[in-house]
Amino acid sequence: MPADGAGRFLKACRREPTDATPVWFMRQAGRYLPEYRALRERHSLLELCHTPDLATEVTLQPTRRLAVDAAILFADILLPFEPLGLGLSFAKGEGPVIERPIRDARAVTALPAVDPAVELGYVLDTVRLVRAALPPAVALIGFAGAPFTLASYAIEGGASRDFALTKRFMYAEPKAWHSLLGKLAELVGSFLAAQVRAGAAAVQLFDSWVGCLSPADYREYAQPHSRRALELARAAGVPVIHFGTNTAGFLADFADAGSDVVGVDWRIPLDSAWTTIGATRAIQGNLDPLALFAPPAELERRVREILNAAGGRPGHIFNLGHGVLPETPIDALQTVVDLVHQRK
Amino acid sequence: MPADGAGRFLKACRREPTDATPVWFMRQAGRYLPEYRALRERHSLLELCHTPDLATEVTLQPTRRLAVDAAILFADILLPFEPLGLGLSFAKGEGPVIERPIRDARAVTALPAVDPAVELGYVLDTVRLVRAALPPAVALIGFAGAPFTLASYAIEGGASRDFALTKRFMYAEPKAWHSLLGKLAELVGSFLAAQVRAGAAAVQLFDSWVGCLSPADYREYAQPHSRRALELARAAGVPVIHFGTNTAGFLADFADAGSDVVGVDWRIPLDSAWTTIGATRAIQGNLDPLALFAPPAELERRVREILNAAGGRPGHIFNLGHGVLPETPIDALQTVVDLVHQRK
Repeated sequence: MPADGAGRFLKACRREPTDATPVWFMRQAGRYLPEYRALRERHSLLELCHTPDLATEVTLQPTRRLAVDAAILFADILLPFEPLGLGLSFAKGEGPVIERPIRDARAVTALPAVDPAVELGYVLDTVRLVRAALPPAVALIGFAGAPFTLASYAIEGGASRDFALTKRFMYAEPKAWHSLLGKLAELVGSFLAAQVRAGAAAVQLFDSWVGCLSPADYREYAQPHSRRALELARAAGVPVIHFGTNTAGFLADFADAGSDVVGVDWRIPLDSAWTTIGATRAIQGNLDPLALFAPPAELERRVREILNAAGGRPGHIFNLGHGVLPETPIDALQTVVDLVHQRK
Repeated sequence: MPADGAGRFLKACRREPTDATPVWFMRQAGRYLPEYRALRERHSLLELCHTPDLATEVTLQPTRRLAVDAAILFADILLPFEPLGLGLSFAKGEGPVIERPIRDARAVTALPAVDPAVELGYVLDTVRLVRAALPPAVALIGFAGAPFTLASYAIEGGASRDFALTKRFMYAEPKAWHSLLGKLAELVGSFLAAQVRAGAAAVQLFDSWVGCLSPADYREYAQPHSRRALELARAAGVPVIHFGTNTAGFLADFADAGSDVVGVDWRIPLDSAWTTIGATRAIQGNLDPLALFAPPAELERRVREILNAAGGRPGHIFNLGHGVLPETPIDALQTVVDLVHQRK
């Protein structure tokens, strides 16, 4: 474990110089770990999320194996759908299924007000338990889904390839769309702030699927609501990371939504991404999760390419461009941590 | 039908001034047309491709309804897998299934030499029949899949979400990878040239899934083979279009593979894409196929945005950013054609 990984991580979020580049991995608490799979044999994904002791254990698992500088809370971006009354379950293979998807303006109006501090209180309990159990040298990152990505699941009823129902709703019912995303923005913004009050040292807003939008549609239909959620989170006083995939075509707008750190996928060189988002923001990324399956020399070459692109400038947090895949070899993750930390 | 759509289309490919912006739609011959669905009730997808009379009929169908400036040959990018001995079928819902996917270097070595002029001769027969039946005012576009996209299907055994097997093969077996893509480049390059000799007025190389790669991986593992295929096609003497999706992060490299026209998806503004690919190339795109489901006023706004971004500069071919979706309303496509052609 690094002597002060948390300090290193938080300094990088604020673009202050660090002794080494900090590193953590999206979905580092997950199926690639045998101890996680063992728990999943006895508990469903939702049971793990709902039970603070178990969610705490899962959050801690990767930190016992990997010298990462931060732990990410184990939870699911779709948990708010339960108090929203949409009905959430996970089919075999873990794809989410929304029982009562949102398909019209009436369904948006009917959404109940949700106080995440109460109705998602079990997540906040997990934050408190993790913070107590985690070595102080490891930062705890909380998270939530961004309004667009949550809306896409709520409307599609699950995962989607072309987001046809989402965009059709957006085009046909712009008022209901903005009402829905406005509600989601308040919910996730206050949820992130509550996680900070419970002990999260930083929070990340995941807009994983926003890259299906055109730049003009991003600005009109998604950005205002991400901005609001980020604003609520930042008011809680810790660094906020804003992550999306396939954002290369509108990265300036994505950064302009407002966050301390912008997370980018592997589809754009880190240096040109940083130029686009501007020197006033830190950057997180951007190794292809599949590079972890490459032979060691190839993996090392790719890690060094990213470190070289960052050029040692303060404000780079090493990460993947998306989550760790279930079959990822654990050794490859430790190799990356070591390579990143060795680099002064 | 425009008086000389073919001339308008070919001039735009060469960046010469035209009376109006030319327009056609990727997958304009397909399931959104009731007359296509009627044929598909009696014939499988492969039967339609294998039977020049039927493939000709399907190619012509959209040109009877829509005043498009070009027709695109009805075929499938995976047809070369049949003479390559990989075994090709389409499951219900039309997802391709490769019976004998390529999983090791030996399978690459074992690939037979394929002469597309002979073993894909039925496609060339279709080109000849379409050319004879199509009004001279409509250009005929031939096409093939790019080496990377074909390799991804050959290795995955079908469609993929994260291209895990493809990238693992690429990283672990770089020699076999380059051998495979080299063979595919020769095959599709000569196939495109043969389509030109049979009467295609232009050809398009589809690298639909190349946007899953990082910019560095694109340059190393895909671009050299696309360049070779494009070179063979261009030597046949007609304009060549090079299309991919999710290419915003490495669009300069994508354009640098060499083509007369670069096709872009909707995830990047057309004007900034054109700046990146350079004024020496024409550009094709880039309406989100889902915009065709928007109310008429919204659709019109999006079409005008793209025309404004092109700014009337010679060398813009209007198209979608990917193929027409099966449930697309036909009227929306005609609306787009009319809007594009009205604009002087």
